[in-house]
Amino acid sequence: MGMRAMVLRGKRLAIEEMARPTPGPGEVVAKVLACGICGSDLHAARFMDDMVENTRRSGQTAWDTIDLNKGMVMGHEFVAEVVESGPGAEAWSVGARVTSFPVLIAPTAPNGMLSIGYSPETPGAYGEYVRLSAPLLLRVPDGLPNVIAATTEPCAVGLHAVRQAKLEAAETAVVMGAGPIGLMTLLWLKKEGVHHVTVTDLAEPRRDLARQLGADLVLNPKDGPVGEQMMTGGAHAPQVVFECVGVEGTLQQAMELVIRGGRVVVVGVCMKPDTIYPMVGINKQLALQFVLGYTPDEYAEALTALGDGTIDTAPLVTRTVTLNELPAAFESLADPRDCKVMLVP
Amino acid sequence: MGMRAMVLRGKRLAIEEMARPTPGPGEVVAKVLACGICGSDLHAARFMDDMVENTRRSGQTAWDTIDLNKGMVMGHEFVAEVVESGPGAEAWSVGARVTSFPVLIAPTAPNGMLSIGYSPETPGAYGEYVRLSAPLLLRVPDGLPNVIAATTEPCAVGLHAVRQAKLEAAETAVVMGAGPIGLMTLLWLKKEGVHHVTVTDLAEPRRDLARQLGADLVLNPKDGPVGEQMMTGGAHAPQVVFECVGVEGTLQQAMELVIRGGRVVVVGVCMKPDTIYPMVGINKQLALQFVLGYTPDEYAEALTALGDGTIDTAPLVTRTVTLNELPAAFESLADPRDCKVMLVP
Repeated sequence: MGMRAMVLRGKRLAIEEMARPTPGPGEVVAKVLACGICGSDLHAARFMDDMVENTRRSGQTAWDTIDLNKGMVMGHEFVAEVVESGPGAEAWSVGARVTSFPVLIAPTAPNGMLSIGYSPETPGAYGEYVRLSAPLLLRVPDGLPNVIAATTEPCAVGLHAVRQAKLEAAETAVVMGAGPIGLMTLLWLKKEGVHHVTVTDLAEPRRDLARQLGADLVLNPKDGPVGEQMMTGGAHAPQVVFECVGVEGTLQQAMELVIRGGRVVVVGVCMKPDTIYPMVGINKQLALQFVLGYTPDEYAEALTALGDGTIDTAPLVTRTVTLNELPAAFESLADPRDCKVMLVP
Repeated sequence: MGMRAMVLRGKRLAIEEMARPTPGPGEVVAKVLACGICGSDLHAARFMDDMVENTRRSGQTAWDTIDLNKGMVMGHEFVAEVVESGPGAEAWSVGARVTSFPVLIAPTAPNGMLSIGYSPETPGAYGEYVRLSAPLLLRVPDGLPNVIAATTEPCAVGLHAVRQAKLEAAETAVVMGAGPIGLMTLLWLKKEGVHHVTVTDLAEPRRDLARQLGADLVLNPKDGPVGEQMMTGGAHAPQVVFECVGVEGTLQQAMELVIRGGRVVVVGVCMKPDTIYPMVGINKQLALQFVLGYTPDEYAEALTALGDGTIDTAPLVTRTVTLNELPAAFESLADPRDCKVMLVP
């Protein structure tokens, strides 16, 4: 049986026909119900050379060895419905609504697993069907809409960033950048009881979202130095700054904004080399914590929080697109009126 | 009464005659017995514009407001002998051999204190006499030579860096740079029981010193990638890298060398803007801890360790100079055959 999916081939994105995956032992095949479009995928499609350089410098080889001429289906923020179970996975019956830490257990692969969404060997969720490992499946709580459940992954990224910051309730935080990850970070900061959170963004629609999601102070960096605006707004200098922009220069801005002895949590993915003034870090005795992804436990915790309503990501989902509309949606993702765009195949 | 001292005036260093300080309430005046030459002083003399830029970006104003045309006597790594006590400081009798956290309590100054060694208002120890605050004085243990006791300050810097790294004994560390601070860091790492410490330096005399001081592996970065040399030498990839060089590029090298999930402790003072690949930090989930100076407790602990012999810094003191020789010694401090050069006025 065939299926349709958006394939990255070289640097080109297009809808293609391909074979529908079949479940191996311990696996299910599931029909994609919703999949969020992620900024990292934009990076992958546009800045593959940077990706290879960065992973090489990180002592990794994954990106060096991916042959994109083989074609790769991205998409790792998914909710899907089981349509077929392989041997040993029969406990997952047809119709079960699931999500999963985006990894496929694959004993013969390097590290014993394949990435779901960044591997030519198994399709990600920018298509009609995915192959999933039964031991990693999580049941989506009844009543939770597909497009909200599909925010579990970026929601877990925000949770991981907040946990890594080791915040105390009395501390104040700044979130630089009100894209999906910055806003998820904001949601968890408020859930964890951090008493004052300032969010900054250049784009008005995103600042509006930050206000709606509970930010105590929302600022436009264009209106003047953020530190001065915070003082005018009655906020203290932040103990922690979450850098969720990820372009050249924002890390240094975070280092200048944070209080002496404070922490900068680097969540935004800057693909390019960046310039900092190390002596500012020394003068202020700063700690920079770079963070990536989330643990399986954090992924499950994010889904639980969405299910019981203690985290509400509905305002972040600004638009849904069909598979046919997906390539064009990718091109327009820089539009600040969009926040999280959902594929509903 | 007059005294002689080396004065930084504008960008020029010269020996000048000036008034000998007199002790105010709670102060003593002490005759300098030995004072280490510090790399930071070289920076101050040569890169004042960078210093101002960096402190401004750190939200500080100290260096902006120093008028170097007034003249400033540097020198903050000192041992001295009390020659006169002010009111309330009579407990410190003439002849007492002392050192001090390099700060003068000065209620009318900004922050209530003056830096000893970086303030035009009170002389540092690159001269014959200094003014010291009695509450901060520490008695130098009997039998500890002056030039060793005068290493208390850089020894405390190494202690602070190691404490900030929160090491466990089973971890492995790399110290990049075998200048005085790198070697002090090495000494404390071995004293704290860290089981494997690799030291890297481009200069052979410094690598020899690192071996003599107990490094488990000593490498020349010119001989190939340090990570590969470590594997050949039977060492594991390090959990912690201490960056004690402080020139452009070494921070990124540290980020590439350290293990995934590891820590980079930034001790070396890079005065210039520097380039890093933030995504390497993200891919490896690194923590960068910038450190500066030491606490008063750490200063006292360093002196105690020198006094009881558990830390031996004697091999670091490669040369002594007189006050007349000091300006020339400053110019030649880049010579790698020198490590810690001591002024003995």
